[in-house]
Amino acid sequence: MKRLDWNTLDETARREALARPAQARADELKQGVAAIIAQVRAHGDVALRELSAKYDRCALDAIEVTAAEFDAAEAALDEALKSAIREAAGRIDTYHRASQPRSVGVETAPGVRVERMLRPITRVGLYVPAGTAPLPSTALMLGVPAAIAGCREVVLCSPARADGRCDEAVLFAARVTGVHRVFKLGGAQAIAAMAYGTDSVPKCEKLFGPGNAWVTEAKLQVSGDPEGAAIDMPAGPSEVLVIADDVARPAFVAADLLSQAEHGEDSQVVLLSPSAALLDAVAAEVDRQVATLPRSETALKALAQSRLIAVDSLAQAVEVSNRYAPEHLIIQTDEPRALLDGIESAGSIFLGSWTPESVGDYCSGSNHVLPTYGYARSYSGVSVASFVKQISVQEVSADGLRAIGPCTVTLAAAEQLEAHRRAVSMRLDVLESRA
Amino acid sequence: MKRLDWNTLDETARREALARPAQARADELKQGVAAIIAQVRAHGDVALRELSAKYDRCALDAIEVTAAEFDAAEAALDEALKSAIREAAGRIDTYHRASQPRSVGVETAPGVRVERMLRPITRVGLYVPAGTAPLPSTALMLGVPAAIAGCREVVLCSPARADGRCDEAVLFAARVTGVHRVFKLGGAQAIAAMAYGTDSVPKCEKLFGPGNAWVTEAKLQVSGDPEGAAIDMPAGPSEVLVIADDVARPAFVAADLLSQAEHGEDSQVVLLSPSAALLDAVAAEVDRQVATLPRSETALKALAQSRLIAVDSLAQAVEVSNRYAPEHLIIQTDEPRALLDGIESAGSIFLGSWTPESVGDYCSGSNHVLPTYGYARSYSGVSVASFVKQISVQEVSADGLRAIGPCTVTLAAAEQLEAHRRAVSMRLDVLESRA
Repeated sequence: MKRLDWNTLDETARREALARPAQARADELKQGVAAIIAQVRAHGDVALRELSAKYDRCALDAIEVTAAEFDAAEAALDEALKSAIREAAGRIDTYHRASQPRSVGVETAPGVRVERMLRPITRVGLYVPAGTAPLPSTALMLGVPAAIAGCREVVLCSPARADGRCDEAVLFAARVTGVHRVFKLGGAQAIAAMAYGTDSVPKCEKLFGPGNAWVTEAKLQVSGDPEGAAIDMPAGPSEVLVIADDVARPAFVAADLLSQAEHGEDSQVVLLSPSAALLDAVAAEVDRQVATLPRSETALKALAQSRLIAVDSLAQAVEVSNRYAPEHLIIQTDEPRALLDGIESAGSIFLGSWTPESVGDYCSGSNHVLPTYGYARSYSGVSVASFVKQISVQEVSADGLRAIGPCTVTLAAAEQLEAHRRAVSMRLDVLESRA
Repeated sequence: MKRLDWNTLDETARREALARPAQARADELKQGVAAIIAQVRAHGDVALRELSAKYDRCALDAIEVTAAEFDAAEAALDEALKSAIREAAGRIDTYHRASQPRSVGVETAPGVRVERMLRPITRVGLYVPAGTAPLPSTALMLGVPAAIAGCREVVLCSPARADGRCDEAVLFAARVTGVHRVFKLGGAQAIAAMAYGTDSVPKCEKLFGPGNAWVTEAKLQVSGDPEGAAIDMPAGPSEVLVIADDVARPAFVAADLLSQAEHGEDSQVVLLSPSAALLDAVAAEVDRQVATLPRSETALKALAQSRLIAVDSLAQAVEVSNRYAPEHLIIQTDEPRALLDGIESAGSIFLGSWTPESVGDYCSGSNHVLPTYGYARSYSGVSVASFVKQISVQEVSADGLRAIGPCTVTLAAAEQLEAHRRAVSMRLDVLESRA
């Protein structure tokens, strides 16, 4: 891990210190993905089978998971795991229900009622990676808010194994959240199928979920096409930033940094502290703990790019964190809440010694599909709001139009939009002729 | 206007009936915009002056509007217009405050607190077209929610006239909403300046606002670049769909169709009715009213592509409207509210005879920056939520971790994320050793 002192760095060095790995959308990747999308649009299910054979090394029979396969998956799982999945779903549901958007109505002038009406996005497509490590938790994080929103059709894609089956825990988690249909598809072809539809896969209006570079590039491409689909957010490698003082336990901090590092070689791991002793102790703990991790190779590569940064105060730590805008922000200090007011950007925040990022990843109730790569400056994590449209509704009475019509007429005239003006003045004339 | 009968059309004809004009992102446009963006990134203010001279035919001195120019603009406007702008701002503020997102907190398990914290996007860039017809109302629609959200810096770009000045009403509206800085820039170069920053123009994290094809293409390109900026929504030509029965006044319906048609040649105008008599009467009224419009040439071109569609019932009208997903939906029927439950997608809805679209465009309080081109299926109009990040915050007590730790451990193990598991189990061990 790199050891830096923020206050000895000039501006250029500071920018470098917080730089994320270049995620250049390499031409080769862009073109490869564009070709896959075009192939799926042109040849539908036939293309899906070809691409699954090629990329997932899986010869698909039926593309859609059957009821029998759902049942078999459920039977194959041990009770403890199923119980944990249901338990997590329950807390995720509790938090998402409590934080969902609400309808609202207000009179902005006598006789002028303006409301906000909510409607679910009709058909949504969820992507759940499986590859090396299936992610049933992602199925929960996407399926629960989709169900609360009331989306009429919720479709999920997850790549099958070489034996032609989807991961059992992913299927079970999907069923728990009421996902209607699951397709054994992965990669850019899954995104293309959900964005444009095939004979088997319904066309969806918005797509959600994390994935590898091919998946995220495909999401970007289909979201730029009006005939494609909207997406939840752009993506990048996962990341954590920890702010810790000398009250923090080095072993805990090290464990949290490693839980991020094990995700992938390009995972981002940053620790800020005004305590040199804490930084030293954490560095030692990381070395000690990583040795026994199954994913130590991956973690070590990620750690080679990680940064332990000395700052002069917690206030400066907050400043640096805001500049970085981390996906996950962990605050292990004497009074974590005291720092919250100063936080401007982060995907999800974890306060105190007993709140490891892992609980947010799985079952505290918050969502784990979060903005990375600095997108936390302008995007929010997935929520029920991601699955609904907020539609304004206005109803003006005759008296209401008498009240606000003149203002409308003045502004329309100023903007030289005569038909806009007349749509109002004509009505005001009718009202006046009644009087 | 084209006259169609929905129930005589086969599926292909129906698709054509609701088709929007192809908005192909022509290669020429894409490349032209990419070149402008590259030029601004490379040469900053120098490029901005060159491009303003080229495209706005305006030789800029200072790029930023001065306090003196703001004062001069205010002095130049007549009192009635200033009063109307303030009045509109007031109602827009009322509705946007009432409908803004709220902080929330809930215990998802004893000792497990999960909250949603709101933070404004730090620096936002607003684009207000001016060209042929300046739009002070757009300055209000973007400036008001930005102010309510508390964005630290709100930047606005609007192209200057040939005399080097911005439209006075746009400047006044900006000032009313507390916009901090205005720059005399238009087109793709304004978007590039706000997305990447120059010496004069601050780099913004998210950009908002309507514009011509160059502006919308530039927004799309900068939003695909992690170093660029997020955007409010993709855009297309403005559109209205009216559902009317024989209770509607043909003159009112015609006026509403024309207020949309006058926007531009590619404006979309659709009327659905189960009453042939109403369709006939509206067609006649449109012909009569358009003759005397200043923008009649534009309106006529838009109307040539417009559709008067006979449906068999209001229920079918709702079905067709949902399929089209209009930006503006006007319901002039006997009981407009009765149709609301069935509406799935629209940007903004207008109920009844005394609620022309114009009031929403200017001053009912709702926002007029809305999803067009079918994007109403998956996007919402601009609101305060567009200017904030929703950040989840969790705080777990020792008892809370005893409660939810085991679930986390089980799920992390199932996903083979050992460091995630250990981050929890290590803490549980410490807690147990205390007990």
